[in-house]
Amino acid sequence: MQALEQKILSEGIVLSDQVLKVDAFLNHQIDPVLMQQIGHEFAARFKDQGITKIITIEASGIAPAVMAGLELGVPVIFARKHQSLTLKNDLYKAQVHSFTKQTTSTIAISNKYLHATDKVLVIDDFLANGQAALGLIDLIHQAEAEVVGVGIVIEKSFQTGRQLLLDKGYRVESLARVESLNDGQVTFVRD
Amino acid sequence: MQALEQKILSEGIVLSDQVLKVDAFLNHQIDPVLMQQIGHEFAARFKDQGITKIITIEASGIAPAVMAGLELGVPVIFARKHQSLTLKNDLYKAQVHSFTKQTTSTIAISNKYLHATDKVLVIDDFLANGQAALGLIDLIHQAEAEVVGVGIVIEKSFQTGRQLLLDKGYRVESLARVESLNDGQVTFVRD
Repeated sequence: MQALEQKILSEGIVLSDQVLKVDAFLNHQIDPVLMQQIGHEFAARFKDQGITKIITIEASGIAPAVMAGLELGVPVIFARKHQSLTLKNDLYKAQVHSFTKQTTSTIAISNKYLHATDKVLVIDDFLANGQAALGLIDLIHQAEAEVVGVGIVIEKSFQTGRQLLLDKGYRVESLARVESLNDGQVTFVRD
Repeated sequence: MQALEQKILSEGIVLSDQVLKVDAFLNHQIDPVLMQQIGHEFAARFKDQGITKIITIEASGIAPAVMAGLELGVPVIFARKHQSLTLKNDLYKAQVHSFTKQTTSTIAISNKYLHATDKVLVIDDFLANGQAALGLIDLIHQAEAEVVGVGIVIEKSFQTGRQLLLDKGYRVESLARVESLNDGQVTFVRD
């Protein structure tokens, strides 16, 4: 997706050969127009799949997921990383390990909003080692719903997540595929 | 805002005379069409104010704020409640006390995205005691930017937040104003 790649090149910051910081338009400040374009692109790639729900994780997945939900005409559920007062019982839970932060956290959704009849699109901001996406897929399976695919805003293609998801049979659509962050430069995968 | 009040009446759950749960369309599952309507309404109320930025707090403020940002044509910054790896230095920070949870947390934004020339709209999902809004206003003041007003999706008008903000001279626009949750019933303030 060209507008996204341009934004990454102009406003992304390469912190190391592993870490791309996009706080300028996705992870802290959000560009709503770009989010709308991203939602449009996800919808174009997954239309005609009968999707009934989108699932994502707080906080950075919410903006792209809601824009995709608007285009596809379906609700969005965001998994919570921290249990809140009004969301205590009847949860599906999964463990997500972050290799970047070296932490394991629990993500959870209420069992009220996902059902066995749902066809679910997973959306997240980044795909690195695939652990967050697998955690969300775990929640979907607990609801006995169907995983239609995984939509990612920025994929770090030099990490293992994409292949891990493909090997398990999931369709992965990443709007920007970063081939390398070497030497402080972002290069993209070209098909 | 009638569509929002209808949604609260049909899908909100009154947990006590203090707590209204709207996990069905705002705080956990999100209704993107309603969020678009909410963004439209915020934009209508605050247009012609020269707003340059919107600020909110993760996670539930993001969807309405991004839709308002799309309508107003301005970026959205979401304050973080938990420090992340790629967001460590050069922060504005404020303390936010939650009377509901009886906790005090630190919220933070990078100083890169707010400047003294900015005219800022604060958006949040709920207004109860006003502590979250005041925390966001504190961050805006640290940047020496201007607070244009506070846009709230659901105001609990029987709590002190609205008056606290008005007394400090801030404009408050709440799209639904809940007068009471007594006897398990939601009633709204009528002007």
